[in-house]
Amino acid sequence: MQTNQRQPILTAEELLNNWQGHRGLTRRVIEAFPEKELFTFSIGGMRPFADITKELLAIEAPGLKEIVTGKTNPLVEENNALKTKADLLNAWDEATEQINVYWKQIAPEGFRRVFKLFGQYEAPAINSIFYAIDNEIHHRGQGYVYLRALGIEPPYFWEH
Amino acid sequence: MQTNQRQPILTAEELLNNWQGHRGLTRRVIEAFPEKELFTFSIGGMRPFADITKELLAIEAPGLKEIVTGKTNPLVEENNALKTKADLLNAWDEATEQINVYWKQIAPEGFRRVFKLFGQYEAPAINSIFYAIDNEIHHRGQGYVYLRALGIEPPYFWEH
Repeated sequence: MQTNQRQPILTAEELLNNWQGHRGLTRRVIEAFPEKELFTFSIGGMRPFADITKELLAIEAPGLKEIVTGKTNPLVEENNALKTKADLLNAWDEATEQINVYWKQIAPEGFRRVFKLFGQYEAPAINSIFYAIDNEIHHRGQGYVYLRALGIEPPYFWEH
Repeated sequence: MQTNQRQPILTAEELLNNWQGHRGLTRRVIEAFPEKELFTFSIGGMRPFADITKELLAIEAPGLKEIVTGKTNPLVEENNALKTKADLLNAWDEATEQINVYWKQIAPEGFRRVFKLFGQYEAPAINSIFYAIDNEIHHRGQGYVYLRALGIEPPYFWEH
């Protein structure tokens, strides 16, 4: 017997665990950078990993908050308050908690609601959540190359 | 009212569409490389993007076939038959078709079955499928850095 393609195959809890697992790995990538290179090193004109981290911080918890509240704000990636690796890691850990809290506040129909994230990206919330996770994996892959180019062994990809 | 964390939030069809969307983008990344650099260019001792592509080809359709048949084989990433960009793109397109065919053959309980992929990685099939997709996004992010370092504009991340 074959699978009905409308068969559900993932629960809310599993997707949160998957996301937080990825976020744990990204945290280890941030940690692996030397302080200076985190804010300065780049290849091919791309952003340093600190700026990438700020993008992820700007999208993830704030985006989830918008999905919960239904209120949108413009996306703001710049954050001059985050000046050190410790600042970034603290902000990362705060976002971890916020994501856990907001996640449980999503209404049952909330994952399917079409929503203009940051007043800009119109999609069902579930798609925006997958985008946020995939965007993190994508940019973290970039961080792996930066680390290798710096002669630093990155964390193992799948230990989370 | 809040979401029950055991609420299903994704169907089989949606996950396949998400995966094939990613595979379409990865195809465009393969295409964006010049023939020679696809097989030779690397940063920090990492593999050229052709070798990464061969890894993805070795994991994705063959892994899904194992989930369908329940028969495991060792993972073989090397493939000396793939010598040109056209070879890789043809193999990619064949895998696209194979994935679509195998996907519809997964039994309803098949996504949850714990299975030792390639005789090695023991996990519920759904986790192995997410691993395959996340692994592709991760390595494609690496390919983006290679392209930027070569002075080539990569395809837009989220046009799929």
